[in-house]
Amino acid sequence: MAKTSRTAIQPTREQDYPEWYQQVVRAADLAETSDVRGCMVIKPWGFSLWENMRDALDGMFKATGHVNAYFPLFIPLSYLEKEAEHVEGFAKECAVVTHHRLEAGPDGGLVPAGPLEEPLVVRPTSETIIGASYARWVQSYRDLPILINQWANVVRWEMRTRLFLRTTEFLWQEGHTAHETREEAWEETLRILEVYRAFAEDYMAMPVLTGEKTAGERFPGAAHTFCIEGMMQDRKALQAGTSHFLGQNFAKASGIQFQSRSGEREFAWTTSWGVSTRLVGGLIMTHADDNGMVIPPRLAPRHVAILPIYRDETERAEVMTYCTALADELRARTFDGAPVRVELDNRDMNAGDRGWDWIKKGIPVRVEVGPRDIARQAVFVGRRDREPRDRYGQERAAFVSGVGDLLDEIQAGLLDKARRFRDEQTREIDDGEAFRAFFTPRNPEKPEIHGGFARSHWCGGDACENRINDELSVTIRCVPSDREASGPGACIVCGAKSPGRVVFAKAY
Amino acid sequence: MAKTSRTAIQPTREQDYPEWYQQVVRAADLAETSDVRGCMVIKPWGFSLWENMRDALDGMFKATGHVNAYFPLFIPLSYLEKEAEHVEGFAKECAVVTHHRLEAGPDGGLVPAGPLEEPLVVRPTSETIIGASYARWVQSYRDLPILINQWANVVRWEMRTRLFLRTTEFLWQEGHTAHETREEAWEETLRILEVYRAFAEDYMAMPVLTGEKTAGERFPGAAHTFCIEGMMQDRKALQAGTSHFLGQNFAKASGIQFQSRSGEREFAWTTSWGVSTRLVGGLIMTHADDNGMVIPPRLAPRHVAILPIYRDETERAEVMTYCTALADELRARTFDGAPVRVELDNRDMNAGDRGWDWIKKGIPVRVEVGPRDIARQAVFVGRRDREPRDRYGQERAAFVSGVGDLLDEIQAGLLDKARRFRDEQTREIDDGEAFRAFFTPRNPEKPEIHGGFARSHWCGGDACENRINDELSVTIRCVPSDREASGPGACIVCGAKSPGRVVFAKAY
Repeated sequence: MAKTSRTAIQPTREQDYPEWYQQVVRAADLAETSDVRGCMVIKPWGFSLWENMRDALDGMFKATGHVNAYFPLFIPLSYLEKEAEHVEGFAKECAVVTHHRLEAGPDGGLVPAGPLEEPLVVRPTSETIIGASYARWVQSYRDLPILINQWANVVRWEMRTRLFLRTTEFLWQEGHTAHETREEAWEETLRILEVYRAFAEDYMAMPVLTGEKTAGERFPGAAHTFCIEGMMQDRKALQAGTSHFLGQNFAKASGIQFQSRSGEREFAWTTSWGVSTRLVGGLIMTHADDNGMVIPPRLAPRHVAILPIYRDETERAEVMTYCTALADELRARTFDGAPVRVELDNRDMNAGDRGWDWIKKGIPVRVEVGPRDIARQAVFVGRRDREPRDRYGQERAAFVSGVGDLLDEIQAGLLDKARRFRDEQTREIDDGEAFRAFFTPRNPEKPEIHGGFARSHWCGGDACENRINDELSVTIRCVPSDREASGPGACIVCGAKSPGRVVFAKAY
Repeated sequence: MAKTSRTAIQPTREQDYPEWYQQVVRAADLAETSDVRGCMVIKPWGFSLWENMRDALDGMFKATGHVNAYFPLFIPLSYLEKEAEHVEGFAKECAVVTHHRLEAGPDGGLVPAGPLEEPLVVRPTSETIIGASYARWVQSYRDLPILINQWANVVRWEMRTRLFLRTTEFLWQEGHTAHETREEAWEETLRILEVYRAFAEDYMAMPVLTGEKTAGERFPGAAHTFCIEGMMQDRKALQAGTSHFLGQNFAKASGIQFQSRSGEREFAWTTSWGVSTRLVGGLIMTHADDNGMVIPPRLAPRHVAILPIYRDETERAEVMTYCTALADELRARTFDGAPVRVELDNRDMNAGDRGWDWIKKGIPVRVEVGPRDIARQAVFVGRRDREPRDRYGQERAAFVSGVGDLLDEIQAGLLDKARRFRDEQTREIDDGEAFRAFFTPRNPEKPEIHGGFARSHWCGGDACENRINDELSVTIRCVPSDREASGPGACIVCGAKSPGRVVFAKAY
């Protein structure tokens, strides 16, 4: 039998949350650091999470009229300089290509040679290089809208990196659209925000708040930035996706102009929006527990691991025959519109270790099958959303016919659990002292998990926003679109009038 | 009626093949050059060809036991230097990152700042950076084989670039596998070669020769390089994919060592293999004609374009109702295991221009529908594998029920046609003068299309190989695995003994 009494991840979340995160990534074999500063290796199990996210999002983008394309990795320095706020926002973290070959240096080793006339920046984001294409493509209002998405790698030279959450190179999608009118671009910005919200909740089982960023937290060069924000298990916020209304800023910088219906030259209205491999980090921190990763079924590379258990060759033949047939029966069932994904794990390891390996990897359902199960035409089921010990026998036919419903139930349960957690850690706070206490650990030597989302009033002033950031490392995560519904009040910092509550939190 | 008499592409293939290629890319809206030297923009229609290739190949890789992962874009210079031939092969074409931020320069513009201690090379291929990971992952024979593929962008600083065929940045997949034994790695190398052959012929309808490269044409650092080679319509060869048996060269360079079954420390045997967006260029040059692009149905973003034709609002309503129903009926049919992909093109352009637009884009089937077709419950069909004028009326129900077969027929016909062309332009040549004449244009001022594949004898010597390259710009494209079947003979250059024929051609 599997040894299910021990705790798989050391330390636990309570003991040392950041280290627990690293250990989950390692135990689930999701990724590792590389020797290239801040760049990670995404290992096969982790990459298949990203593939599943990509496929689901790609389908949602296409269903809303978008197509994919691909633009250059390199951006001429002069392009980046076209939008002043934009370059200001990215200049400090750009990987710069200055040479185009290597040659033998004075001490025999290779050194860069062939200096470029104009340095190239490895794209930190592609507004300016894509804008240059759009400027060529758009002549008339008939050429609009352009609704393009790109799946790509981008580079931002981060000084403090963490696997998935903040890496120098990361994978993402970046949508870039151009429109005839302000209204259309505004609608697009919010349409994508809704796609992101639906994806986060329906696929990742990660409840998110939606709203607008304050001016200080906007994307460099954007007129408005909207976001989805999730709460991680250490009660910090994770900005999981952003959708930017760029106004005419980038159209002016890149010269995206068109002849309007009334015959005038006008600048287009553009948007951009993205989510990245950071989502994998969000998935981990939303669902993983002290036993390892927990993957919502809709994103799981495999749904069910079948673990044959036998003591000798005679048992082996019987058990494997039963398990192979079981795997085929399960694969003939559907979940989420596609065949159930089944792994028959017959590795040369003891059954307990195999079982624990799948627990750590976060597979939704484990099924153990030994001779006694076969005698009863049964299976022994472990659900990842329950404790490892908490397993149950079930008639084989009933398990097979119910596997789709079981996966639906696990998916829904994970979202419910995460939402309950988020709601429990969300407070309406109107008192400055209470606010400060909420965001202050009791033991400053070893900050325990604390804080959460504070729904508090804010006057709208930069000074108050900055003061809270400086003193408590707390930021305004978003200004909800229905802010007024919470009623007016007094700013948590200065007491001035506030039209409604906004959401404060510590954040990744 | 559509104007189908004119030729869409100027110049024709015969008039100026290289320029014809550029014009097809432009007319089909596949890609364009960017302002970044040698980097292209892959436009949505061109990118969806690549997406379809990627999805088909990805399925074939997964069916042969491979999984995807992702490794860093940047390679420390010291990694690249680990394999001497390898770095020698790529040093002249490396984009080098030397700085990690930008700051205001003396004249106010931005200049690179934050010099890196060790320059980073933007990956031209990933053997060395992936090898560093494998060295960490592999301890025992139980950790082998590793069967990983990566979809990625790579950069090789090319001086003469051409859209899709040779660009500074390109998209590709690179498989990297590590094995316990020489035999296993050898089998893997050939298994992938067969995947590439099957993909090229079954999906791209591009017949290919398979064989081994000569030592001079090997991948830098490989022990053996195998390839698929197609013949383009200008009779030049295109190397469309390569599969490398790396022996223990890279395992030694990266330190990929394991404890063998007998307890000894051994180096792993590795392979690598790749195809790139160059395949899109191969697709164009295999099938496109003087009217524009021709896409084999299995890779077509859309299979059928429906073109409603009407003169006024009354006709419009009737025609659109009919066409919408037709589109739904077609989408309910399957081709290649998935629903038929249908575009109902009701753009505000005259029907002839719309029809020509789809011809140029290469869609396999066009269907015109006007009031007279409706009266007969018919459709008017144009196949891209026939002349634009050569259209026919067909009963609607028969067209709908037969659409899958029609697409199968077009797919098979394109492969047959390309294979006939290839075979017609392939000669067994045993005479030096005839060989020279075969590869020499009659008019040196304006080289017309000439040459083809010469199946000739070769002694195996570098000197003979180089002489032909120097004098005629002709290379040995591959040494067929069944070379001996063609019987022994005398080297086309020096007359020395040859065990069998090899394939000579001019090449991209």
